[in-house]
Amino acid sequence: MASNHNSLIRTVDLNCDFGEGFGTYTFGQDTELLQYVTSVNIACGFHAGDPHTMRTAVNQALAAGAAIGAHPGLPDRLGFGRREMSVSASEVYDFTLYQLGALQAIVRASGGRLTHLKPHGALYHMAGKDKAIAEAIIKAALAIDDQLIIYGQSGSLLLDTAIRFGMPYASEVFADRAYELDGSLAARSKPGAVLHDADEAAAQAVAMAAQGIAYTPDGSPVHVQADTICLHGDGAHAALFASRIKEALIAADIILRSPSRTLRE
Amino acid sequence: MASNHNSLIRTVDLNCDFGEGFGTYTFGQDTELLQYVTSVNIACGFHAGDPHTMRTAVNQALAAGAAIGAHPGLPDRLGFGRREMSVSASEVYDFTLYQLGALQAIVRASGGRLTHLKPHGALYHMAGKDKAIAEAIIKAALAIDDQLIIYGQSGSLLLDTAIRFGMPYASEVFADRAYELDGSLAARSKPGAVLHDADEAAAQAVAMAAQGIAYTPDGSPVHVQADTICLHGDGAHAALFASRIKEALIAADIILRSPSRTLRE
Amino acid sequence: MASNHNSLIRTVDLNCDFGEGFGTYTFGQDTELLQYVTSVNIACGFHAGDPHTMRTAVNQALAAGAAIGAHPGLPDRLGFGRREMSVSASEVYDFTLYQLGALQAIVRASGGRLTHLKPHGALYHMAGKDKAIAEAIIKAALAIDDQLIIYGQSGSLLLDTAIRFGMPYASEVFADRAYELDGSLAARSKPGAVLHDADEAAAQAVAMAAQGIAYTPDGSPVHVQADTICLHGDGAHAALFASRIKEALIAADIILRSPSRTLRE
Amino acid sequence: MASNHNSLIRTVDLNCDFGEGFGTYTFGQDTELLQYVTSVNIACGFHAGDPHTMRTAVNQALAAGAAIGAHPGLPDRLGFGRREMSVSASEVYDFTLYQLGALQAIVRASGGRLTHLKPHGALYHMAGKDKAIAEAIIKAALAIDDQLIIYGQSGSLLLDTAIRFGMPYASEVFADRAYELDGSLAARSKPGAVLHDADEAAAQAVAMAAQGIAYTPDGSPVHVQADTICLHGDGAHAALFASRIKEALIAADIILRSPSRTLRE
Repeated sequence: MASNHNSLIRTVDLNCDFGEGFGTYTFGQDTELLQYVTSVNIACGFHAGDPHTMRTAVNQALAAGAAIGAHPGLPDRLGFGRREMSVSASEVYDFTLYQLGALQAIVRASGGRLTHLKPHGALYHMAGKDKAIAEAIIKAALAIDDQLIIYGQSGSLLLDTAIRFGMPYASEVFADRAYELDGSLAARSKPGAVLHDADEAAAQAVAMAAQGIAYTPDGSPVHVQADTICLHGDGAHAALFASRIKEALIAADIILRSPSRTLRE
Repeated sequence: MASNHNSLIRTVDLNCDFGEGFGTYTFGQDTELLQYVTSVNIACGFHAGDPHTMRTAVNQALAAGAAIGAHPGLPDRLGFGRREMSVSASEVYDFTLYQLGALQAIVRASGGRLTHLKPHGALYHMAGKDKAIAEAIIKAALAIDDQLIIYGQSGSLLLDTAIRFGMPYASEVFADRAYELDGSLAARSKPGAVLHDADEAAAQAVAMAAQGIAYTPDGSPVHVQADTICLHGDGAHAALFASRIKEALIAADIILRSPSRTLRE
Repeated sequence: MASNHNSLIRTVDLNCDFGEGFGTYTFGQDTELLQYVTSVNIACGFHAGDPHTMRTAVNQALAAGAAIGAHPGLPDRLGFGRREMSVSASEVYDFTLYQLGALQAIVRASGGRLTHLKPHGALYHMAGKDKAIAEAIIKAALAIDDQLIIYGQSGSLLLDTAIRFGMPYASEVFADRAYELDGSLAARSKPGAVLHDADEAAAQAVAMAAQGIAYTPDGSPVHVQADTICLHGDGAHAALFASRIKEALIAADIILRSPSRTLRE
Repeated sequence: MASNHNSLIRTVDLNCDFGEGFGTYTFGQDTELLQYVTSVNIACGFHAGDPHTMRTAVNQALAAGAAIGAHPGLPDRLGFGRREMSVSASEVYDFTLYQLGALQAIVRASGGRLTHLKPHGALYHMAGKDKAIAEAIIKAALAIDDQLIIYGQSGSLLLDTAIRFGMPYASEVFADRAYELDGSLAARSKPGAVLHDADEAAAQAVAMAAQGIAYTPDGSPVHVQADTICLHGDGAHAALFASRIKEALIAADIILRSPSRTLRE
């Protein structure tokens, strides 16, 4: 997707995490968000999800026409995969391969295709800064399908690693977060780091998708590569943000399309 | 494998459960048994096994030349998948598909091929008597690979179901267990139901493989179809039984070969 | 509580299951229900709950003045403890003792007292019909505190067992369910077995508490001992039913009080 | 135990981890070690152990006359509680309280008394260096029983914290490990850091117990407070080391006694 933001026709993907319930538990507003996204990242049974929840999520995503990706996490259901654990790169490879295989089987059984991979929570963050962890994930993806698209934070080590291994990738940005001048996310503790207004987030989404521009907490522009925009499913206003962002992108003539479709055309 | 015991050249498979450790825990003598078997059934992370244990087991099996099957179980690690649970057929389908997919990915990443499926413990027993459960397992297998060989107890509903769905199968017998005249296993509580002598078990193994004959507790012959003989890995004399059975079969000119190889030739 | 419904002053307990979330997951409307109940049954980490969720639930219950009981379940988080498992009585004893001890420690650390025990889901049903399971639960309770009040379904084997072991008990009834003439619950599949109208349920609650009378699906009265009425937390109208039932009981001059308080006076 | 190494009569405790199996899995040689120790640390169901395994372990320890302590761990069964996780102090408090309560109930039901607490694996290490984690553990212990003896590494923050909260404690040393001059353990990677000879370990055990002296990798003496010596249960020569250490201590007229007995006299 390296050339996406330079092409004349602007396209962007809207993704959300999906299928993050477990057994009798549901999580967030992911079902509501489904109408706004072009791709979903489905939990694979470690941080969330279970075989039945996964199959239901896959079928919902297929019905909605969303591209289906894997959202593997650390084996920490109690912590929802959000806390870092001292796992080795070899363990991460095994965890990722296992989860990818399980979801791929379910997707195929439902007549779909697994298109991408986005690590969840602590694994996403670890993969963004630890070279061995990033490589472990990329190698697991390669073992499954060398056309699996790697979703990683814009500018992250995970994307660099995907490029180095020749894997397709999508650079992910957050419409509701401010950025630092070096392209990293501004820490949540910083004033202005989180955009609480849906219209502001929608405006930044358009700037990201159309021009590759995000903003620092004090309003300076900063370059980001925006192949896919992450929509959060668990805030109180998740659906509102999602609808505003989608409307604004459409109004700006940006085509909403998953990277898997963009890459195939 | 329906015609196996009628052919002039007798072949039989020796299988054992494999990779049933978890994290730091090991289980049974499966590593020792590997030299005696032609196929292994690898735990898939529900009743036992975890991603790393699975990959290690797959690599050991590949190095030993054993055919690799999946050994999916109920989601009950504490009970080692041995206690029945009130799960629906739909849940069994999902559990099986998930586990098959996870193991298949690991086998492929190691350069191997998943050849068969044998349900574990309580799931094996439930699949042998409950039509909906048996169908759920067969459908999950079909969704993965229509050439996946179903290992099921000789005369069981699971094998009938495999036949009905057109799946290849292997009829499993137990060398160290006596049978009833109807072809079912004699209950363990019955005197003579369990063969405690390795030579007796070896003799029955030969009779099973060469003539399709097992014995009742009082010594009457009973027909069984013996495509694969299960070697137990967790008794004190597991390795001894395995070596005696293998020697006796070879001495009787029976070729030890996995069903996946027999079916391909 | 055997003499409760014969006394001049009518009292009844309203209980609900509580703290049935897990990690980041919440469950049902239990926080809303807290204002209507006099006792809560807190999940203990097997079918639901975890140490942090339990402590939060304990503190909420203490703040609301509700009596705190344990709600132990089967070790089946994926199935929410709702499916029967082939567990031995000895395992049930161990599971129950472990869960009781864990919750008791948390309750004491928060300055409260564990007053009762109500088995959850499949364990509740198994304890109502299997003598060895019922005894295992009662023995675990006895090992913790011989004043722990056993909540069990009216007429169930669990209550008989509590009586036989000299344990205090509370006979539980369901305001929104019809009964058979033998005092058992009418099967949900039967027309009229579930009361879908809050006022009907409230009327039956009053009849139960004031006169020890419930109704069959066709309206015949049947005797039940109503020491405690279970309020469900997971239906769409849970809070509505709870408020109507509470209002009706108060209007009928029935004192709402937990058995632990009734027994102490 | 602060004054132990100054008294004329030398006493020391020998402890080992115990009951670290899970379901059908066993772990290490703990049953063999039981004859050599005066106290055991029993896993509580998080990193290892389950209700039935715990009760069995408690009964074995009681029969052997060993003092019974809790060995709580992180909620990471797959990693056996050995990998650090980003858990908050509040979570550690909850995890510890839950596990202590569960084990205490089982110990009491078997007629015993819970005498001490030793955090397991990563939690032990985290408690040795992170003040908030150490306090969380001590507070959970206090909530259970203010006479619970805290086992912590000699010189560790956990022991300092126990002292600060007025809790009894036992300073733990390792007979088979060399120390640095500052009293910390020499890193395993350092030559000479691990004593591979049972007689050397036994000699250091005597020096520790009799004189409060351990040795650096190059043989310099360093002061340690040796209230309890940890015997490892999972090496190939665990039982050999244990028997040599016990023999050497007895030969040196050092009385083997758990801190719970020493403190009571």
